Amino acid sequence: MNRSIDIAICQMSVTDSKQNNLNKAEMMITQSVSKNKAQIVVLPEMFNCPYNTKVMADYAENIEGETVKRLSNIAKKLKVYIFAGSFPEKDKEKIYNTSLVFNKEGQLIGKHRKIHLFDVDIQNGIKFKESEVLSPGNDVTVVNTEFCKIGLAICYDMRFPELMRAITLKGAKIIIVPAAFNMTTGPAHWNELLKVRAMDNQVYFIAASPARNMSADYHAYGHSAIVDPWGKIMAQAQAGEIILHSKISLSRVEKIRNELPLLKHRRTDIY
Amino acid sequence: MNRSIDIAICQMSVTDSKQNNLNKAEMMITQSVSKNKAQIVVLPEMFNCPYNTKVMADYAENIEGETVKRLSNIAKKLKVYIFAGSFPEKDKEKIYNTSLVFNKEGQLIGKHRKIHLFDVDIQNGIKFKESEVLSPGNDVTVVNTEFCKIGLAICYDMRFPELMRAITLKGAKIIIVPAAFNMTTGPAHWNELLKVRAMDNQVYFIAASPARNMSADYHAYGHSAIVDPWGKIMAQAQAGEIILHSKISLSRVEKIRNELPLLKHRRTDIY
Repeated sequence: MNRSIDIAICQMSVTDSKQNNLNKAEMMITQSVSKNKAQIVVLPEMFNCPYNTKVMADYAENIEGETVKRLSNIAKKLKVYIFAGSFPEKDKEKIYNTSLVFNKEGQLIGKHRKIHLFDVDIQNGIKFKESEVLSPGNDVTVVNTEFCKIGLAICYDMRFPELMRAITLKGAKIIIVPAAFNMTTGPAHWNELLKVRAMDNQVYFIAASPARNMSADYHAYGHSAIVDPWGKIMAQAQAGEIILHSKISLSRVEKIRNELPLLKHRRTDIY
Repeated sequence: MNRSIDIAICQMSVTDSKQNNLNKAEMMITQSVSKNKAQIVVLPEMFNCPYNTKVMADYAENIEGETVKRLSNIAKKLKVYIFAGSFPEKDKEKIYNTSLVFNKEGQLIGKHRKIHLFDVDIQNGIKFKESEVLSPGNDVTVVNTEFCKIGLAICYDMRFPELMRAITLKGAKIIIVPAAFNMTTGPAHWNELLKVRAMDNQVYFIAASPARNMSADYHAYGHSAIVDPWGKIMAQAQAGEIILHSKISLSRVEKIRNELPLLKHRRTDIY
């Protein structure tokens, strides 16, 4: 089993042109592999579509659509795992915020539909209602890879420690979360959440945001990061477009779980 | 119902003299009430005894002992709620790390025995094994007060998001945690944990550490803090002896729970 993994996050700027977004994703994934030798590449939430409930239906595709075909081909061509951020997935009459995982043969090996929809109304801050157009997923998602089990969740899902724990108890040593926090919750909560989810569950926590696009309706916080299982930030972006890269070590997960045995010390007789 | 509460933390320096520790606690509680008009005063973990498993048995007392009588009298005399940090409590053949709560009539209205014992062995860092001498408690503790329900846990207990959530679901709007992090885990994890426990559960989170005593075996991190339900630190100590004070507002708990309805958005059908 591979003990170290090169991971890259493409913190890409998302525009209202799906073609441009797909081209940008392909370009950044290609560069992640050629320049950073990435074995796993992660895209942000809603990487091919503006994060705006008014347009998600227009951009939605089903699982046999153009976006999926293209990502599968890129993964196969570059021989790289792609955790493909998320896109609006159409399934019959419903639309989901869905993240897909492709292995290096280009096979679709995992799929997560955002469980917790972002319906908030903060005074003098962000207002958003995903449930106006999206339906929620219902499954805890952990994907088998050649490296280890990897948990997958989307943005607001990470607010719920129960889900992060459920993913961990299913065996994940890495949790990947495409996410687009905003300028209200980002500065207040983003870094703390990433660090504590990593340190509570003693996993590598990989959070991939879009770059901040001030000409879009929704201003993403950016600040994608790779956090180690001790809660230390190994690499972090600012707001702009960038490829973030780090080499992570699965033996570090085991070392920390042995030294500070949080998962063993859980009192499941009480809670 | 009272909507705002003056809370004080006595970040006291703990020595190996129980009498001096009790005197110091009385002096600082008195000052919290006279100077800061505190309605609730919080003491640190092991406030009357060095945090050292070799001596805890020598300092242990039962629930009718001197420490309890003295705290009850102070609470009654000053008409103040005391969340009395913790002390080694002897019960038959067992010793617990126990936190007591007195109301302003001096009645013992709550008691928490540390559930998760701190047994860790970190390379080039802290090694500690509470289970050498202590037995674990088995109950989630929430205390009724005239202000609201208040959850109570001790130090390593706060590492477990399950317990923090269980306390919250029992109705707590404030969680009080006497705690003595150390110079390994304190700088790495303390602030992040306090903030995320507050923001996940949308409670005021009150963490009371002893001051750092460099002549003791165990070097507490200090940095007691009062964190609001948005995860904002309202008041924070450094390492030295100090009374920390803040006025907190229960209506802010409700406001934040309405604006960002995390507790309503939990998917209990999934986890």
